[in-house]
Amino acid sequence: MTRFALTVEYDGRPFMGWQRQAHGPSVQQALEEAAQAITGEAVQVHAAGRTDAGVHALAMRAHCDIAKPIAPFRLMEALNARLRPNPVAVLGCAVVADDWHARFSCLGRAYEYRIVNRRAPLTFEKGLAWQVPQPLDTAAMAEGAAQLVGRHDFTTFRSAHCQADSPVRTLDRLDVIREGDLVVIEAAARSFLHHQVRSMVGCLALVGMGRWTPGDLADALVAADRTRLGLNAPPDGLFFTGATYPVSG
Amino acid sequence: MTRFALTVEYDGRPFMGWQRQAHGPSVQQALEEAAQAITGEAVQVHAAGRTDAGVHALAMRAHCDIAKPIAPFRLMEALNARLRPNPVAVLGCAVVADDWHARFSCLGRAYEYRIVNRRAPLTFEKGLAWQVPQPLDTAAMAEGAAQLVGRHDFTTFRSAHCQADSPVRTLDRLDVIREGDLVVIEAAARSFLHHQVRSMVGCLALVGMGRWTPGDLADALVAADRTRLGLNAPPDGLFFTGATYPVSG
Repeated sequence: MTRFALTVEYDGRPFMGWQRQAHGPSVQQALEEAAQAITGEAVQVHAAGRTDAGVHALAMRAHCDIAKPIAPFRLMEALNARLRPNPVAVLGCAVVADDWHARFSCLGRAYEYRIVNRRAPLTFEKGLAWQVPQPLDTAAMAEGAAQLVGRHDFTTFRSAHCQADSPVRTLDRLDVIREGDLVVIEAAARSFLHHQVRSMVGCLALVGMGRWTPGDLADALVAADRTRLGLNAPPDGLFFTGATYPVSG
Repeated sequence: MTRFALTVEYDGRPFMGWQRQAHGPSVQQALEEAAQAITGEAVQVHAAGRTDAGVHALAMRAHCDIAKPIAPFRLMEALNARLRPNPVAVLGCAVVADDWHARFSCLGRAYEYRIVNRRAPLTFEKGLAWQVPQPLDTAAMAEGAAQLVGRHDFTTFRSAHCQADSPVRTLDRLDVIREGDLVVIEAAARSFLHHQVRSMVGCLALVGMGRWTPGDLADALVAADRTRLGLNAPPDGLFFTGATYPVSG
């Protein structure tokens, strides 16, 4: 068996999420069926993060084991040919050590969340951004974001379905960047709770709208109480942007 | 009658182009039907440029005359409400003088053409960029582009269906910009011939692939012969990005 590390881009709009589901298409299933068609093997693909329905990836990291001898470049080309017409593309493929694991070896995960801050409806970005019509005060949002960075109990920003053992996470970075109508929120941590990024973004948007002060956001965090969540942002604007590992692979 | 100037964004994928067609949907028809539903009037919408099927706009300029009293902001909001679910959005709306004409008053038009230069198929950008798998030498493309700037007979780069009186145009700017996998070609002129941007981009891509030298491109221009056209780029990557006028409107 050879272990291959993959870098995968996908448009989450037609999918129920990364993980295989009985009731609809998933990115994992699309990749596994492509790999099986190429190799004749029942290939399992493991990802650094399991994105929700409608969430996208610019550079998801994943791995799979294949017995059939095949060069990484050939595997990448064959996967991309078989993945059509799914909006999933393999951007990179490399042989890695047998103990390299896309999820368990991962030291850091990064997401970005895209808000289009304008009154006009979305055209190109429909399903790829959250449209917020009220003018957002991004300076206030940045002030709020700074209060979430660090090691905290993030219970307030955690889905009821979250399976993590602990609600404590260390948020390394939460930046708010405006470029014209586009407000991008970049988040980085070793790992995130289920819905954590969308929940943080939803509350930051309340701060940007002036409905919450940055202090209200800090209070909601300290409360460690899911009922204090102000708003959960829709999946549309969320992109998994990268994962880091101790060795390249 | 009040004349309104509009700034319009549209995703060209579902449309037969800007102009009304008997055989399929157009951006003009979508806007005119929305305006008619709001006003009860048979409104005609005129644009700065008539984009082809599958071509997009980030900021098309247009105008229309409306008898019913309505404030520009209200008109914009009502148009956007009526345009759903078409991927067309009115970003700006202002009252202008009765002799202001989106097409005839226009002093300059700008386009950008997006190439994604990678082997992997497109996901998010399918229909919104031209995927070129061969590595493109953008320095050679910029050298070729420089030879097209200025006043020339652009017959080589003109569609057989072009209705312009003269094939002579003054190309003010043709820049080639690389940002990672994305190669953007920005073009500006008072006006363009039919298919001129796509034809120039197609030949620049041949230069980038090494199949033409920058000198071959110059030779093709001087020949002023449509049969010397190397390649017409697909509509997917073309965006109308702006129009300029003597007074703001």
